[in-house]
Amino acid sequence: MARRRESSALPSSMGCEGYDLQSKNHLYRFCWHSFLSSQIELARPYCKYSARPPSVSLIPQHVEKAVRLARFGKPGVSYLDFPGNLLQARVPTNSIPDYYTSPEVPLAFPNPQVISEAVQILLTAERPLVIMGKGTAYARAEDLAREFIHSTNLPFLATPMGKGVVSDSSPHCVASARSTALQKADLIILFGARLNWILHFGRPPRYAPDVKIIQIDVCSEELNNSVKATVSIFSDLKPAIGQLLQEVKAKGFVFGDNTNWWKLLKQKCQQNKLGVEKMVKDTSVPLNYYTVFHHLQSQLPENCLIVSEGANTMDIGRTMLLNNLARHRLDAGTFGTMGVGLGFAIAAALWCQKYEPSKRVICVEGDSAFGFSGMEVETMVRYKLPVIIVIINNNGIYGGLDQETFNELQNSQPATQAIPPTSLSVMCRYENMMSLFGSTGYFCKTIPEVQAAVRECLKEKHLPSIINIAINPSADRKPQAFNWLTESKL
Amino acid sequence: MARRRESSALPSSMGCEGYDLQSKNHLYRFCWHSFLSSQIELARPYCKYSARPPSVSLIPQHVEKAVRLARFGKPGVSYLDFPGNLLQARVPTNSIPDYYTSPEVPLAFPNPQVISEAVQILLTAERPLVIMGKGTAYARAEDLAREFIHSTNLPFLATPMGKGVVSDSSPHCVASARSTALQKADLIILFGARLNWILHFGRPPRYAPDVKIIQIDVCSEELNNSVKATVSIFSDLKPAIGQLLQEVKAKGFVFGDNTNWWKLLKQKCQQNKLGVEKMVKDTSVPLNYYTVFHHLQSQLPENCLIVSEGANTMDIGRTMLLNNLARHRLDAGTFGTMGVGLGFAIAAALWCQKYEPSKRVICVEGDSAFGFSGMEVETMVRYKLPVIIVIINNNGIYGGLDQETFNELQNSQPATQAIPPTSLSVMCRYENMMSLFGSTGYFCKTIPEVQAAVRECLKEKHLPSIINIAINPSADRKPQAFNWLTESKL
Amino acid sequence: MARRRESSALPSSMGCEGYDLQSKNHLYRFCWHSFLSSQIELARPYCKYSARPPSVSLIPQHVEKAVRLARFGKPGVSYLDFPGNLLQARVPTNSIPDYYTSPEVPLAFPNPQVISEAVQILLTAERPLVIMGKGTAYARAEDLAREFIHSTNLPFLATPMGKGVVSDSSPHCVASARSTALQKADLIILFGARLNWILHFGRPPRYAPDVKIIQIDVCSEELNNSVKATVSIFSDLKPAIGQLLQEVKAKGFVFGDNTNWWKLLKQKCQQNKLGVEKMVKDTSVPLNYYTVFHHLQSQLPENCLIVSEGANTMDIGRTMLLNNLARHRLDAGTFGTMGVGLGFAIAAALWCQKYEPSKRVICVEGDSAFGFSGMEVETMVRYKLPVIIVIINNNGIYGGLDQETFNELQNSQPATQAIPPTSLSVMCRYENMMSLFGSTGYFCKTIPEVQAAVRECLKEKHLPSIINIAINPSADRKPQAFNWLTESKL
Amino acid sequence: MARRRESSALPSSMGCEGYDLQSKNHLYRFCWHSFLSSQIELARPYCKYSARPPSVSLIPQHVEKAVRLARFGKPGVSYLDFPGNLLQARVPTNSIPDYYTSPEVPLAFPNPQVISEAVQILLTAERPLVIMGKGTAYARAEDLAREFIHSTNLPFLATPMGKGVVSDSSPHCVASARSTALQKADLIILFGARLNWILHFGRPPRYAPDVKIIQIDVCSEELNNSVKATVSIFSDLKPAIGQLLQEVKAKGFVFGDNTNWWKLLKQKCQQNKLGVEKMVKDTSVPLNYYTVFHHLQSQLPENCLIVSEGANTMDIGRTMLLNNLARHRLDAGTFGTMGVGLGFAIAAALWCQKYEPSKRVICVEGDSAFGFSGMEVETMVRYKLPVIIVIINNNGIYGGLDQETFNELQNSQPATQAIPPTSLSVMCRYENMMSLFGSTGYFCKTIPEVQAAVRECLKEKHLPSIINIAINPSADRKPQAFNWLTESKL
Repeated sequence: MARRRESSALPSSMGCEGYDLQSKNHLYRFCWHSFLSSQIELARPYCKYSARPPSVSLIPQHVEKAVRLARFGKPGVSYLDFPGNLLQARVPTNSIPDYYTSPEVPLAFPNPQVISEAVQILLTAERPLVIMGKGTAYARAEDLAREFIHSTNLPFLATPMGKGVVSDSSPHCVASARSTALQKADLIILFGARLNWILHFGRPPRYAPDVKIIQIDVCSEELNNSVKATVSIFSDLKPAIGQLLQEVKAKGFVFGDNTNWWKLLKQKCQQNKLGVEKMVKDTSVPLNYYTVFHHLQSQLPENCLIVSEGANTMDIGRTMLLNNLARHRLDAGTFGTMGVGLGFAIAAALWCQKYEPSKRVICVEGDSAFGFSGMEVETMVRYKLPVIIVIINNNGIYGGLDQETFNELQNSQPATQAIPPTSLSVMCRYENMMSLFGSTGYFCKTIPEVQAAVRECLKEKHLPSIINIAINPSADRKPQAFNWLTESKL
Repeated sequence: MARRRESSALPSSMGCEGYDLQSKNHLYRFCWHSFLSSQIELARPYCKYSARPPSVSLIPQHVEKAVRLARFGKPGVSYLDFPGNLLQARVPTNSIPDYYTSPEVPLAFPNPQVISEAVQILLTAERPLVIMGKGTAYARAEDLAREFIHSTNLPFLATPMGKGVVSDSSPHCVASARSTALQKADLIILFGARLNWILHFGRPPRYAPDVKIIQIDVCSEELNNSVKATVSIFSDLKPAIGQLLQEVKAKGFVFGDNTNWWKLLKQKCQQNKLGVEKMVKDTSVPLNYYTVFHHLQSQLPENCLIVSEGANTMDIGRTMLLNNLARHRLDAGTFGTMGVGLGFAIAAALWCQKYEPSKRVICVEGDSAFGFSGMEVETMVRYKLPVIIVIINNNGIYGGLDQETFNELQNSQPATQAIPPTSLSVMCRYENMMSLFGSTGYFCKTIPEVQAAVRECLKEKHLPSIINIAINPSADRKPQAFNWLTESKL
Repeated sequence: MARRRESSALPSSMGCEGYDLQSKNHLYRFCWHSFLSSQIELARPYCKYSARPPSVSLIPQHVEKAVRLARFGKPGVSYLDFPGNLLQARVPTNSIPDYYTSPEVPLAFPNPQVISEAVQILLTAERPLVIMGKGTAYARAEDLAREFIHSTNLPFLATPMGKGVVSDSSPHCVASARSTALQKADLIILFGARLNWILHFGRPPRYAPDVKIIQIDVCSEELNNSVKATVSIFSDLKPAIGQLLQEVKAKGFVFGDNTNWWKLLKQKCQQNKLGVEKMVKDTSVPLNYYTVFHHLQSQLPENCLIVSEGANTMDIGRTMLLNNLARHRLDAGTFGTMGVGLGFAIAAALWCQKYEPSKRVICVEGDSAFGFSGMEVETMVRYKLPVIIVIINNNGIYGGLDQETFNELQNSQPATQAIPPTSLSVMCRYENMMSLFGSTGYFCKTIPEVQAAVRECLKEKHLPSIINIAINPSADRKPQAFNWLTESKL
Repeated sequence: MARRRESSALPSSMGCEGYDLQSKNHLYRFCWHSFLSSQIELARPYCKYSARPPSVSLIPQHVEKAVRLARFGKPGVSYLDFPGNLLQARVPTNSIPDYYTSPEVPLAFPNPQVISEAVQILLTAERPLVIMGKGTAYARAEDLAREFIHSTNLPFLATPMGKGVVSDSSPHCVASARSTALQKADLIILFGARLNWILHFGRPPRYAPDVKIIQIDVCSEELNNSVKATVSIFSDLKPAIGQLLQEVKAKGFVFGDNTNWWKLLKQKCQQNKLGVEKMVKDTSVPLNYYTVFHHLQSQLPENCLIVSEGANTMDIGRTMLLNNLARHRLDAGTFGTMGVGLGFAIAAALWCQKYEPSKRVICVEGDSAFGFSGMEVETMVRYKLPVIIVIINNNGIYGGLDQETFNELQNSQPATQAIPPTSLSVMCRYENMMSLFGSTGYFCKTIPEVQAAVRECLKEKHLPSIINIAINPSADRKPQAFNWLTESKL
């Protein structure tokens, strides 16, 4: 699909060593270089399955296995390698076995007794918190998760790709009180979320030392990882949340609005809201992240898919751009790899094109992140994918530049000064990328320009759009209770 | 424990490259060679976890993870690497974090609806067969598995390490009709067994083309592997078998003794029994495999642990040496790696020494297999492990030698002829290995000698014993309906 | 330097697992995830050295080793990994060892007796041919190689990156008679060239079955690879060619102009020249590859560096774009990996900026190839690198499109038809990429436009330029005596 | 050959996944499991070549490449994997290409100018030292190396497998003054030796900080490794030593016997000799290492091959057992891996059997080391290899046991006490291993017994022999100026 794959067949058809006298004419065919088989070895550590079908008739079997392994258990990636000679090979149709397609994903159910133990702990918790992980989204358990939150009146936080399982605009979402929620909770309920670096490993000082943990995961090896869970539930999310829900309903459990916990969380949310509002109201030029995201958010369709990558762009965007639906956010995730945004957006847009033509994909990119795979706009044009690419442009990486350096770079004579390693070309007009395809993009310095641009882009049904928003080169996050990864550096 | 590990600390403490000026004395300490980190990379593809703790205080965390990953989900191997400098390092006790120990294995439960579907299919099956895999043993589900078999009156087969989950001497065990059972069954119920090469991939001609399959596995990725299962149950074995049992009981299901299926299986068992009996009765010298195993079996305690490796020795031994208890057989298993027997026996004997001092470990080795790790007898002596090593000695590998070659080799003058690649030194007196430790072994050519030797060995409580049984160099398996792996070669 | 690296520090500073109570405050620092150490394992199979310095003070040592291994022996790649915490670490200056820098590359000299044997064979060869490999360029042996060719009057062919060691416009260059030269030679002299797929493995039918081979290589393992060399010379190229030269001069050897071999080669060159001239003269619009390259070539400075990638663009460009200097051509080379062109061009331009400011880098890209890394234009702008990027645009990959499909795609209504997998967006105006930086590019459909554009670009000293040349979508190579890789498919 | 390989064909013929409808009978054949291809991936990091021929007709090509890569350049290991189906496959003879055999190893010659520089430095050195590495042995440069030493009158040290290149009993060998020689030398000349851990990385405090280094190596990447060489000579050893020799002769260079350097070295040798003599004269029972080795040495043929492994056994044996011929010592070498001794001895004995029937292989093993692969005695018997295995038995690993523990263990009632991790079974009669083959071994506690045993063994021409020498369980090395690896721990 995307450009990146096209060359992979090429070296395979070249890479060959040795010969095989198979015909009376003593002509030769090649076997594969060791460096080629290495493509499979290379992919293996990162994949659930990595293989090259050794013959045409074995393709169905390898495809079945690749698809099955990608979907079953903890979802993951499969890699299949088709060298040039295999792609062009021809075999009689009847030599292809009639292989089965990969069936429905089988579900593991929870141990009912453990569910009871979990509910028992929940009943006595004073400061409970649900963390909604992407595992809930993968498991398509969003309806049950929402009902659980609403029925129990529990506060929740979402992981980056757990956003939308329960709507970010739900009153139960305490994203605005994240640090407090994590640090003060006496009970954390993990719905398909892992205590990895994104959740600070579940350890002090980001968590209370005696916090109890109820963990639900379809991958039993993740249970008790990093910290010991008080209750470990090895189960698919749907049946586990379903049974929890049934039992809390049976017990008539509702967590009170007037508890000190809810009061504290609401107060923190309110404080945070005020801080954000102050930033949001500041529409002075050059703009800051918060006001850009706030006004961008106000224009987006509620059911849009949001793809995002970048440093501040992704981090602040996670708090400001709201998801109302499960599996409608894709970002750099656990590995934090930059350059994945446009590929994700293409995949999401093709899915929309086929299954949900009324939905739109919004791809919110830092300017540095966009630079990795910006050429994929061509792919979007080619396949008529109306992705809206929003570039939050601070002319650099991480914190960007201070104003002085920015001015110097903008005015500099050629080659007269060193460029800071975190700087990119200043005032780069990425939106002009659309001129490659006979179209135009949008360059915005003010909020009204941003809003008008988004409105225009939403009208476009067959072409990608680019909105390049110049923000303050030294814009940054609001001050945080805990700096990102601060603890790890002490 | 065993000798094999002793050198591993050595190259680590040597392998070093570079220096680090850490002290005012400009002395140096070493970092590790890339070839050393490769020990971890080397182990990784075969392990669930492979790591080297980077410091003493991180050891508890790595041990916890290694143990957890080995036990949770599909059990597997963890590898931890402790280089010499780490082994000898000292740190203040209070610098070691008080890390949690790995808790109980969490259990996944089956989807009740899928259990009902499975029972529905079972109710209408005409030729059902249960295959008892080692997964049932690992899951400690033997009590339920036995009750299931007895309650339903279903025939079963066991995989090599699934033997003993239900006793091999149970009337429901149709091991003697294995080929027929697999080929004619219209329903296969897999209890923690995989359709890999040991089970002929579940495909024709070894199975009926339209056989239905009910598969229970704790590893969802194994479900539908090789062939599509009619019903896939992602669950730990205990709750899955438990619920199946409950439901078949509720339905009052008992598979009739007078069904054609049972008649056919019993007839085949009887036929096979006659064939085996003929071999068993043939106690002429040199002995054959069947009579040796039969009379060996008759002397063994019912609760012994059987360890085995070899070609014919392991294959025929699987059919002739009976297990009555789960997790009481260890053999080369899925990978078929030779040289593992004595290490397995040491591990099993240490377990007995600590937890079940009344049980005995019997290690039944082909002479070739014994040759890989025979020196481990020293380890057994050192740790006072009363393992009984029985060597079935055909003077070679696989089929051994024909009588003529055997005679020639036995009488040959030095260096006068080529030795066939499948031959070992003829008439090698492996039992004399005991003379290294001031003891004696047993050399047996006749059944009475074998029986007497076993009786003697069982009296020994603190030393390993070796019984070296000379069999016919050209002894082989009985003719088989399907040769081993024949189909794969067509 | 380029964007691609920026994120590599990021996941490292995130990727962490475990904690280490090193301070009285019980704060923690992280050790590295296994997936992070995998970056080094990942790179290892492709690198001569791959490592992560374990501490700041070991950086000099690892850098020395990385640089040394990259340069010594057969040159290759080293990979060093610096995670975020190492990049930001601070140590006292005096704790950094004063490590040596990597010295001059030591040279191996040839066995003088083998040199004599080689010359002996050369003296009697009737159809000798020198193949100039990139090994000669790496070894900086171009002066000797030129003198050798001129002194002996031998014909030569260059491998893709061996081009320019002896000028492509030398009368001794028989690139225009390549197939004949390879197939009819009775002696091949390999100057640092390998008989891999680019040279058809040195085997029939592309070579005479009884061809003799004199092979010179600094990597002894390459000697006799694929076919047995008649004379193997394990040596650096400089001393080896130097001694060959000395000896042929001493013998007074000059290969005659009037030999049948030279007559045949010249005749083939002339034939080919006529075929090319016919294409070159065809300046009808849309243009073909040959006329574009011919007229492009006529505008380029003689001392320019040519970087190239693509399918036909790279292949035909190899024959039409001439190199006069060693190490002045970079292309996809042995592995044929697409996406490397702009990175190569940046590296080359930085070298020019520092060491040869009068030289220019010309980057000749297929449109598909440009799509992989086109965003690197931003890097060129940022570092003020006046690279001239020439895109040979056939709107697709390999053979491009037939005219009918091209027309359809150009006029197609949205989403009305499938796009062939070898097609890209038609009429994509890649030159407009310059508008991102407030500049303009060049779009050319005719030869005069091409020529004018190149002249303009050569005037620009601080910015990259893009020339997008629309050629016939179905333009192709001239008919070949041997199709590319044809033999491998027989 | 040895037992260890026999099972490797087995899992391959089992390991299979998928099917291929190739015949009209719709029967299947298997492709290989990914875990099987991993055998090649597994071996790759340790090998110069690791491959599995994909078909019978490609076997010759893979064998040629494996052999060539093992021999050319820096010698190393190649691994070829032949799965069961390939071993048993049959093809028409004429379908096997007539592939070339791997030719003579091509030699690199040194840069004559660098040779002159080296000699210039040598001429002014006050404390020169030659280190004779195994590279000289591999390069078969022993005649030149001897002539060089004799002609220049330079002192030399040998690395473990460089022993014998120049005879250990040469007056120029200063092995008895090793620490002083390394530490005080102002010039080190490395003849195919690497500055790795065995040579303490060439760094202080084991070397003078300003020592000059002349390094000769056929692997240019090794040049300047760990420390910068003053002169780096990239060359095969034969031509390099040859040219050095020619030039020192031309200069008339002879290093004076009366120099302070020789005086110091001789004095240190004499001191050491006195210390050793004291140990040697101590023939009290139980014996010490030195006296055992001294009297063993006195019985050995001058041209024997010595194989050795162990901790103290190998280390002290290196100083006490003398080699007079190149390539006549094999020990655990750079990696220090235990368990390799008997395999090395088998290989060496097969070489003798075929090429040098008058030579004998002496395999000197620590008791722990013997325990790894002791079963290989069976292989020696089978192939009629008269290896003399000498086991230096201290009942444990490294330093063995103190006398008290030894006594306790020897008399202990079963299972009454913990066994130290460095202890093996006490008084293990390894020589009785010969009783497996109807022969007897030798158990020695006194010097006369040792001497008599060796004499007897030398008479045996067709069978291996085992001499088990009980030494003092707490015997150790003499005190050392530098403890082994001490510096690395500071």
